[in-house]
Amino acid sequence: VSDVIERFRPLFYPESIAVIGASASPQKWGFGILHNLVQGNFSGPLYPINPREKEIFGLQVYPSIEEVPGGVDLAMIVVPPEKVIPAVRSCGRKGVKAVVIITAGFGEVGPEEMDLQKELAREVNRFGMIAIGPNCQGVMSTRGKVFGQYIWIFPRSGSISIVSQSGNVGGSLIGKGLTYDIGFSKFVSSGNEAVTKCWDLMEYYGEDEDTSVIAAYIEGVSNGRAFIETLRKVTPKKPVVILKGGVTEAGGRACTSHTGVLAGESSVFNAACEQAGAVLVDSLEDLFYAAATFASQPLPRGNRVGIVTWGGGWGVLGTDACVREGLVVPALPQELIESMNKYLASRWSHNNPVDLASTQTREALTRTLELVIRSDAFDGVVQLGMGVSVFFKHMVDNSFYFSAPDRKQVRDMMVPIAEEMDRNLCERVLGLIRETGKPILGASDTAAMPTEDNIALKTLSREGKLIYPTPYHAARAMGHLARYAAFRKKINAI
Amino acid sequence: VSDVIERFRPLFYPESIAVIGASASPQKWGFGILHNLVQGNFSGPLYPINPREKEIFGLQVYPSIEEVPGGVDLAMIVVPPEKVIPAVRSCGRKGVKAVVIITAGFGEVGPEEMDLQKELAREVNRFGMIAIGPNCQGVMSTRGKVFGQYIWIFPRSGSISIVSQSGNVGGSLIGKGLTYDIGFSKFVSSGNEAVTKCWDLMEYYGEDEDTSVIAAYIEGVSNGRAFIETLRKVTPKKPVVILKGGVTEAGGRACTSHTGVLAGESSVFNAACEQAGAVLVDSLEDLFYAAATFASQPLPRGNRVGIVTWGGGWGVLGTDACVREGLVVPALPQELIESMNKYLASRWSHNNPVDLASTQTREALTRTLELVIRSDAFDGVVQLGMGVSVFFKHMVDNSFYFSAPDRKQVRDMMVPIAEEMDRNLCERVLGLIRETGKPILGASDTAAMPTEDNIALKTLSREGKLIYPTPYHAARAMGHLARYAAFRKKINAI
Repeated sequence: VSDVIERFRPLFYPESIAVIGASASPQKWGFGILHNLVQGNFSGPLYPINPREKEIFGLQVYPSIEEVPGGVDLAMIVVPPEKVIPAVRSCGRKGVKAVVIITAGFGEVGPEEMDLQKELAREVNRFGMIAIGPNCQGVMSTRGKVFGQYIWIFPRSGSISIVSQSGNVGGSLIGKGLTYDIGFSKFVSSGNEAVTKCWDLMEYYGEDEDTSVIAAYIEGVSNGRAFIETLRKVTPKKPVVILKGGVTEAGGRACTSHTGVLAGESSVFNAACEQAGAVLVDSLEDLFYAAATFASQPLPRGNRVGIVTWGGGWGVLGTDACVREGLVVPALPQELIESMNKYLASRWSHNNPVDLASTQTREALTRTLELVIRSDAFDGVVQLGMGVSVFFKHMVDNSFYFSAPDRKQVRDMMVPIAEEMDRNLCERVLGLIRETGKPILGASDTAAMPTEDNIALKTLSREGKLIYPTPYHAARAMGHLARYAAFRKKINAI
Repeated sequence: VSDVIERFRPLFYPESIAVIGASASPQKWGFGILHNLVQGNFSGPLYPINPREKEIFGLQVYPSIEEVPGGVDLAMIVVPPEKVIPAVRSCGRKGVKAVVIITAGFGEVGPEEMDLQKELAREVNRFGMIAIGPNCQGVMSTRGKVFGQYIWIFPRSGSISIVSQSGNVGGSLIGKGLTYDIGFSKFVSSGNEAVTKCWDLMEYYGEDEDTSVIAAYIEGVSNGRAFIETLRKVTPKKPVVILKGGVTEAGGRACTSHTGVLAGESSVFNAACEQAGAVLVDSLEDLFYAAATFASQPLPRGNRVGIVTWGGGWGVLGTDACVREGLVVPALPQELIESMNKYLASRWSHNNPVDLASTQTREALTRTLELVIRSDAFDGVVQLGMGVSVFFKHMVDNSFYFSAPDRKQVRDMMVPIAEEMDRNLCERVLGLIRETGKPILGASDTAAMPTEDNIALKTLSREGKLIYPTPYHAARAMGHLARYAAFRKKINAI
């Protein structure tokens, strides 16, 4: 096991956790942090620290960390700013290995508070501790059962790890994951980064076996060279997806009052990141879809995309979107046209995008999908229109054609058939991805919504896969896959 | 009443409708079209035409349109391609004023079929009828109770009218409207546009009192000059939002097999549209959000945006997004800083974006919103984070802290309070928009989802307003408003 894995173990897999400033009052942050650790089923001892309480959630409260009987791996610090440095000193003396300083009111406020932040850093470094924050929302490690975070959400385990200089941006990402049943491995709200920097966490994630994709929200870095050098080490192994905040002058000013960092010249930052192999995204949604795609789809061997569609307009828009992503939408090989002529009614498009037109059967769709993904002419498929059962139910439920008893009969008879068709198609998609090692990204406006009865989405999300809500989302995700694949190919060739 | 309004009355407000090729078999398009007309409660006589049926849905079936006893305003044609021209002739002789030709297999297939399409056009023009299609999915008029469409969705009445050269793109738009409770006035799937062109419909929508916004999906126009001249007439009165399909070479090829049109040089097309005052969008989502925003928000007097946020990261991203939209995020005037200092805890951002930081109360949010929207320094507000009750319920339902009976008690006691807070805030937002005549666009990731219990969204959607899912969506919508407002100002100054 490498040094960095060893060093961060107390943060992500602690054996015991103290919450300094734990509170019994639901309005306080010290309540939320302790609550979420309990709610997340942390398996080791939890020590609430508060001189004015005896017991919170049935846990014994200690007046100070020094009085905790056993050792403490990780301490969450949620006390007012003036008490933070004394708390850090107590942690150091106690032998705590990692601290997470939730408290705000440091470098993001002004020059005086920035001095305090520097003093805080010196104290931490005296003891050689890891320190997250200050001015952050906490840390999460799904396999370590550490939900030491202010945000009240508990995603399932997965292979995406996040470092975010904004707690609420990280929370938005995880919230979207919860909505679409996408799991996460780790999340650190890194805040002002007085001591432990985002690139330290990226270095760890790069070596962490439970992380396959790194998602980062960054407003600024205090040492550009160290940041880029870390990126260079990590990107040949794993995709690092970066959303930069403060890319405009006004946005940069907002960063200063948010995390106290200097946003810097973003065109320089972006160019350096890109050269170092990072995947740059330009919105919150883009960050989510890119990370979820890298975590669940194979890298394509090239950038030639086959598009299979049930609707002509979506086919046109999907083609435009792919081309704008730098992908190629090549002509359909003659032998595929001949194969498809055998089972598609004459009005089909006879080209790529393959528009099935009037042949709207599940069999035709599956067969076409197979022909395209297995063809040497294509490195991946964007499939437009998948999942019919949700819309079928909507139709049956909203038609005069069925009287109430009929409706139940039709539903009981037809819905399982429609659902079985959705399940079969999606299982086939999963199978074809495995067999061919090529990505298949499906988009649908009826099957992208995470409703309870959406069998298509449920089948795919079992393997962490999404149904993209529009052709643009699918094309964009394919673009990221292809660009990163090209980078990896280039690096490996050197 | 103008000529164009009179001319299109039989299409959108017919007194009687015939469906030529109506079918009793659910697999057929002739079933869906008739079904949806019945389901949509068309109030005049409906005449199914089919030589092999006697009765469908309890309606008497006629062997041919000539044998229908009364007059027919509108005929939907759903027969095989070779029977279309004879059907059109029968319609002409019967005195039908508008036909909608659903049938595909014309100009989109090849040169021979294009000749057939030209013959079809000549026949229609001999009788002076309006003719939509061929190769289309139908027509919809919510106030006319005409749901003569293949897509099985029935939106509520509203002021957005659509013309789309793709049926499924139009269907996606309306589907999104159904999801977010956004209404529509009219929808025409214009297909190959053999006779009636998209600009004819735009001209009608421009004069139609029930239409306040026009949304168009266009792959190509057969007469660029006529199209641009119509745009020039309409855009000074109403926003025309255009999504162009086939903006890439590969996308253009896909258009040819889809609607048989030539996509043309899209940079020329876009520049001409922009100069004529159209609002250009670049994705399906963009088209939906732009149309829904124009339909529900006032036009700003300028491009200066105040941003009010509950989260620093969202504030940074919202600022970046506004600036990239060409909006200005000016500094907060000194008197507003002083006013806010009175009720906001010291860590607030003291600038625009106004990050409330630790003062996360509803009162502080409302007060801040009022100060910013009423200030002469701002033409509109982007508000990040609104609606707490949905997330509050999630918290109560997912916490060990409440035993089951407690949970019910907390829910019963607190949920109505949280919902009342959401309702009040959103009512206040609606009131402030009315009072100031300025747009307020709110974004939230917890309150953007259209769930049954989302009081915030329900309150806003009563007036056709959305909660945008990310800061980008809100900023983009504000950008469209400001750009179009600037165009209107310029036009009026001439």
